[in-house]
Amino acid sequence: MIGAVGVSAPAELRLRLADLYAGYDAALDEGAYERWPEFFTETCLYRITSRENHEAGLPVAMVYCESRAMLADRVTALRDTTLYAPRLLRRVMGMPVLVAVAADGMRLQQSFALFETLLNEPSRVFLCGRCYDRVVEAGGALKFAERVCVSDATLVPVSLVFPI
Amino acid sequence: MIGAVGVSAPAELRLRLADLYAGYDAALDEGAYERWPEFFTETCLYRITSRENHEAGLPVAMVYCESRAMLADRVTALRDTTLYAPRLLRRVMGMPVLVAVAADGMRLQQSFALFETLLNEPSRVFLCGRCYDRVVEAGGALKFAERVCVSDATLVPVSLVFPI
Amino acid sequence: MIGAVGVSAPAELRLRLADLYAGYDAALDEGAYERWPEFFTETCLYRITSRENHEAGLPVAMVYCESRAMLADRVTALRDTTLYAPRLLRRVMGMPVLVAVAADGMRLQQSFALFETLLNEPSRVFLCGRCYDRVVEAGGALKFAERVCVSDATLVPVSLVFPI
Repeated sequence: MIGAVGVSAPAELRLRLADLYAGYDAALDEGAYERWPEFFTETCLYRITSRENHEAGLPVAMVYCESRAMLADRVTALRDTTLYAPRLLRRVMGMPVLVAVAADGMRLQQSFALFETLLNEPSRVFLCGRCYDRVVEAGGALKFAERVCVSDATLVPVSLVFPI
Repeated sequence: MIGAVGVSAPAELRLRLADLYAGYDAALDEGAYERWPEFFTETCLYRITSRENHEAGLPVAMVYCESRAMLADRVTALRDTTLYAPRLLRRVMGMPVLVAVAADGMRLQQSFALFETLLNEPSRVFLCGRCYDRVVEAGGALKFAERVCVSDATLVPVSLVFPI
Repeated sequence: MIGAVGVSAPAELRLRLADLYAGYDAALDEGAYERWPEFFTETCLYRITSRENHEAGLPVAMVYCESRAMLADRVTALRDTTLYAPRLLRRVMGMPVLVAVAADGMRLQQSFALFETLLNEPSRVFLCGRCYDRVVEAGGALKFAERVCVSDATLVPVSLVFPI
């Protein structure tokens, strides 16, 4: 179950949000990337950007998708890409925090640390930062309408092929 | 409290599972390794293996214990070993996710990042990966019947003497 | 919601504790350091020390504050300090665990991993360890009466200017 800041959040809603994030994490941590788009609304925003650009309000992004179809394309590309060396990405996520409830959805934030492991090498820090999410009710389920992943490092490695 | 994916999990059960993991983490993070076997059933499976071997279905493991007594032996060995340099292991664990409920127990998964600190050195990433657990009711309490720790790195350092 | 070990903790209390930690994390992760002292009681103890000193019972500390006013001073100093290179600190925190309830408050523990990112450099492990907290009711809200952050590394970098 998730924490909340300055907003009223009944236990029932917190459980549903915890399950959304748990399902999202389990899919990505098991490498079930084909299921990734299911967690988003048909029209959505998924962006990976740097803290520098985020705070300057710049729209520039390393990854930019604005529909579930674009997310699905990205997964196909990921599966077809053989240019990158075999690697594993491990996500260790902080507890999501509900920070606002508005007409256009619930705003949540979540810190993340990603670790990369190349074949026959030790694991290492890959990227860390914080996600800014908007979650909405869609067809009886909670979905991400927006997930903006903000990397603390300005230079995001080109090997970032997996979703956060 | 923990998240759940695709299974019905009453709030009461989630709380009990959260407390199991909280107790396990607190014992290990405080170095109370003598208490570690208590969290397992009499007959149990505790394994540390690599992602490579895990996905290939190979039984090879860096650590393999199949009873509480073997876990206790391992703790004794750990306490008696003076070959390794003084070090601390810090565990930063993701939220456990309940992914299935079956006749033989509940299946949960949990990502982990371990950090090692040697005397007068900075902390560093030691190992990361994901645990695959089976939890059962035993004598009125929840216990691990199985905990399989899968390291992303193929080469697990020999200095891994502490439980995950 | 948080886990508990060996103590009775009603769901309602767990939610309030989860929200305390969620609010604390959100403030620090968003760099809203001016709000940091609000999470503490008027008279309080905030300390950063090493595992070595902590276990030896030594009072020596890298950071030592014993009132909300001292915490506020520290934030002012942090804002005025221009000696350090621009850097971001990312906190990835474990689930807080409630380990005791006594007359003088509730005792909680929480593991942490901090990552530092300097301009145009990749993120790296900065510090990891465990916090030992005492939380009390104060004016209808939960506040930290004590937060002792224990670093696994003996040598804490001088660049640790941000609160944990």
